[in-house]
Amino acid sequence: MKIVACQMPAELEDVDARLAAIADIVRQARSKGADIAVFPELATTGYGLGDEIRALAEPIDGPAIARLKAVSAEFGVALVIGLPLVEDGIAYNSCAFIAPDGTVSSYNKIQLYGDYEKALFRPGCGAPPLFDYKGMRFGLLICFDVEFPERVRDLALRGAEAILVPTALPQSDGGRFIATSVIPVRAFENQVFVVYANHAGSDARFSYQGLSCIAAPDGALLAQAAEAGPAVICAELDKGAYDASREQNPYLSELRLHTGG
Amino acid sequence: MKIVACQMPAELEDVDARLAAIADIVRQARSKGADIAVFPELATTGYGLGDEIRALAEPIDGPAIARLKAVSAEFGVALVIGLPLVEDGIAYNSCAFIAPDGTVSSYNKIQLYGDYEKALFRPGCGAPPLFDYKGMRFGLLICFDVEFPERVRDLALRGAEAILVPTALPQSDGGRFIATSVIPVRAFENQVFVVYANHAGSDARFSYQGLSCIAAPDGALLAQAAEAGPAVICAELDKGAYDASREQNPYLSELRLHTGG
Repeated sequence: MKIVACQMPAELEDVDARLAAIADIVRQARSKGADIAVFPELATTGYGLGDEIRALAEPIDGPAIARLKAVSAEFGVALVIGLPLVEDGIAYNSCAFIAPDGTVSSYNKIQLYGDYEKALFRPGCGAPPLFDYKGMRFGLLICFDVEFPERVRDLALRGAEAILVPTALPQSDGGRFIATSVIPVRAFENQVFVVYANHAGSDARFSYQGLSCIAAPDGALLAQAAEAGPAVICAELDKGAYDASREQNPYLSELRLHTGG
Repeated sequence: MKIVACQMPAELEDVDARLAAIADIVRQARSKGADIAVFPELATTGYGLGDEIRALAEPIDGPAIARLKAVSAEFGVALVIGLPLVEDGIAYNSCAFIAPDGTVSSYNKIQLYGDYEKALFRPGCGAPPLFDYKGMRFGLLICFDVEFPERVRDLALRGAEAILVPTALPQSDGGRFIATSVIPVRAFENQVFVVYANHAGSDARFSYQGLSCIAAPDGALLAQAAEAGPAVICAELDKGAYDASREQNPYLSELRLHTGG
């Protein structure tokens, strides 16, 4: 299972430019032999667009997903991508898994971050979905979600072997710590892979931390992008390669949930 | 609030030698102006002593605690120290908080690690205690406990501002990752201090990682010992200095526990 995390430039100006860039990145991902390409949070609109994002939110069978399905089918690469979705007139900060065969599943972000997101979106209230693809079981989270250990644990206890995380991590000391320490620890403490795809550069409202990464079950970073600039980083997720780490760090089997809390 | 973490040499041969070394370290801690000195897991007996540890387990009003109370009172420094305690004939891997005024509270390790500990001890089943000392609220955990985010979250949600952790972390790649990445992340994701006191060197059974540390709510390491050799590391826990970090990383107030799990 080969996976890429796509660090996108925040400067891209509109949905058309972004969908074209996404198609181009998927072409690159295909040339690297990728099975899945993971894109940032709100990758189709940009994260910092403000109120306009709500107007751009589409239903799951809308034109943005239709174009992404066509891209996935054309290149034979599955996509995990952040975008605004609307259900019953309500906008969510969502992400979708889109397979080349047209399968789609989506997740609405539970842990909205700050006043900016809370003004734009309603928080999701359903459990993040798991999906099986090419012999591995995956879970989805978005940005702030993954900073809460409870959210990753929930997916790992339900059988996720890799957690795929579109993000829009802003540039700050905390941002650097999250990308270089929190993400590897989430992988280690659950003995799973974590794939974290961020924006880089700046839009009208925010600057982003870059540092997209792919962390292994033993906490090692298999790949990490720079702070600045677009990047397509790549790693092989070899789920059989970490038996010694799982034996030494048996957090899922040893967790005593109902004691002392 | 000034705190020290005491990294003890694993080679010390018996309880008398260890209690003498502990008294000497508390004298050093006093000279640094420390309010609390944190010692490793099973610091009074050594961690690797095997079956003998069960024979050395004492009740909370036994002679080891009595000597430690005298040391705390003599130097005016509170102690947090790992030692084997016995209750109703059952041995636990415990730690005690001992104040200069003779106050004692204790905790029995919930997350026993591996066959070695499980053969020696029964796991604790009570919630770890909180205690207030000189204007701060503290929680206790032992070694493997702190590697589970659930255990630290429980204490933080109950109001702990600093988590004090006697440990016996063995030397390994995982050990290095735990001391340098997992501990700072536990501090950051709860916006609390974590004080982690380990052994260094080797006893008859195990080699230890050293790297005792004091982590701040923003994930910074305020102090970290070397991998080898004894050390007394020191930091001021200034709980008012991290308001900006708490505002940017509001994990305790934003956690949506009952959604999507």
